[in-house]
Amino acid sequence: MLKVPDHQVAGHQGGHGQPGPLIDDSGRFYKPLQDDDRGAIEAAFYTSFSSNTRVPDHIRRFFPVFHGTQLLDASDGSSQRPHLVLEDVVSGRSHPSVMDVKIGSRTWYPEASEDYIQRCFEKDRKSSSLRLGFRISGLQLYGSEESGLWKPERKLVHNLSTDEVRVVLKKFVSSNSPTDPNLNPDCSLASSVYGGSSGILAQLLELKSWFEDQTIYHLNSCSVLMVYGKKKVLKGGSSDAEVKLIDFAHVTEGNGIIDHNFLGGLCSLIKFISEILTSPDECTTKVYLQNSDNKNEEILTSSNECTTKVCL
Amino acid sequence: MLKVPDHQVAGHQGGHGQPGPLIDDSGRFYKPLQDDDRGAIEAAFYTSFSSNTRVPDHIRRFFPVFHGTQLLDASDGSSQRPHLVLEDVVSGRSHPSVMDVKIGSRTWYPEASEDYIQRCFEKDRKSSSLRLGFRISGLQLYGSEESGLWKPERKLVHNLSTDEVRVVLKKFVSSNSPTDPNLNPDCSLASSVYGGSSGILAQLLELKSWFEDQTIYHLNSCSVLMVYGKKKVLKGGSSDAEVKLIDFAHVTEGNGIIDHNFLGGLCSLIKFISEILTSPDECTTKVYLQNSDNKNEEILTSSNECTTKVCL
Repeated sequence: MLKVPDHQVAGHQGGHGQPGPLIDDSGRFYKPLQDDDRGAIEAAFYTSFSSNTRVPDHIRRFFPVFHGTQLLDASDGSSQRPHLVLEDVVSGRSHPSVMDVKIGSRTWYPEASEDYIQRCFEKDRKSSSLRLGFRISGLQLYGSEESGLWKPERKLVHNLSTDEVRVVLKKFVSSNSPTDPNLNPDCSLASSVYGGSSGILAQLLELKSWFEDQTIYHLNSCSVLMVYGKKKVLKGGSSDAEVKLIDFAHVTEGNGIIDHNFLGGLCSLIKFISEILTSPDECTTKVYLQNSDNKNEEILTSSNECTTKVCL
Repeated sequence: MLKVPDHQVAGHQGGHGQPGPLIDDSGRFYKPLQDDDRGAIEAAFYTSFSSNTRVPDHIRRFFPVFHGTQLLDASDGSSQRPHLVLEDVVSGRSHPSVMDVKIGSRTWYPEASEDYIQRCFEKDRKSSSLRLGFRISGLQLYGSEESGLWKPERKLVHNLSTDEVRVVLKKFVSSNSPTDPNLNPDCSLASSVYGGSSGILAQLLELKSWFEDQTIYHLNSCSVLMVYGKKKVLKGGSSDAEVKLIDFAHVTEGNGIIDHNFLGGLCSLIKFISEILTSPDECTTKVYLQNSDNKNEEILTSSNECTTKVCL
């Protein structure tokens, strides 16, 4: 009954001697506990969060429901190991488009080891994290029936320029082909996916209000997952777009201080998304990422040419 | 007519072979341009900011008025050198209490030299910057006619714990002696200085709204200066509390990205000040900083004892 999910876009996937997550048909996601501290920290976070009465109800929906831990055969058949049993936040959507955005200009934290700090420090500087306050960690988009799924290599997604990040956030809500280098993203789904009273922007703003106030947790190296069923929206149906926070292997206690690192990055992401909604005709640098299914090598180019084409 | 100000609490004071700022009787503050890039960057910032039509009028008041540059004899008599001519943001107040808060969990920025980045990185980790998103850079408080001015050594102020920062922010709006180790700050001036529709909290919230949106400047290593005339408030008069942004020697261009580092730190400071207004009776760790005028060595201690004394 358990199988490997085909929609995971970031995080610890199976392979390279590591077991990966599993899903079942009832909408549950089984995440193997990592061997080191990280597994213990993530399990402790879910346990603490589930029972923490200081977390308001309207905020709980932004976190996957936690159903405890369970011993399961690992996805690579290596051995039994404990898994977190979580809500599968992607299931139930037809042609889900998913984006994993790691929030924070800094993914390390004072309590971490020097070695870990140095590694994160370098990665934050090389990726867009330091500059933008977030980085796109993973991505899958449905193009069309013809072009199918577009899931660029993670390495490529990590090292996007500011303009490229802007284009990818537009592609996420566009109906034209994400892989055609001659097309600018048309942003035709922006108002139904990002906009509206229950769209992604409204959800991010609700989270922002909470982060301005909450001093319980510091969500170091945690991601905002944005997901929606593209097929439904393309057919003119209402959007089921959802924001979820995931990956809590580096959470620390807030100790009475807000998570200013997460909050700053979240506000930066909010600004990017707001601009797509309010100024879709803004200068777009031509950028294209080709599908790795079509070419052996992914190509990412950007020109300085400024097109003022209206994209809504 | 020009003299050395007695109210400067942080920044590049005169001494050690460096000329310091000067003031005159008409409310102007003359800041010597630093020799290296920093002087040029700060002058360029003031020039750009003064004429930038994208800065809304209600935001301009948070920046010192800029009157150009002027060649003047340096405060140490060494030579003539160019000075920025600025509004003296402290003048005109009787018994001014002043706090300089350097905003941002990181005072360095990608464009800086490796050497500068390393020095800032260490200082941010040692001080409260990394933890809180800001650090108190300088401070002067009027106690009473008897106790006079309290101006702790900068070195001491830089290395405050979270609880100590909370206590200093309370002392800033208290009428009882800031130097008596047996007194908890009474926060009796909190509602008139921090609170109200034109108080410091309201001003910080106005700034916050702007930082959520503006992508013109990144105010690296810049300070929020909070100032009010204590004598007037003690006598029951309305508060003249003001927030000003100062120190622009490390400003960089925003390039379409919000200053998420500044914004995160500002939100953290806002949270601390909000808590003083809403929960003045909250657990206070006993902390005292003795006046350097009274003792050769300043003492800073904190106990874990929790007092629930109501302080309003």
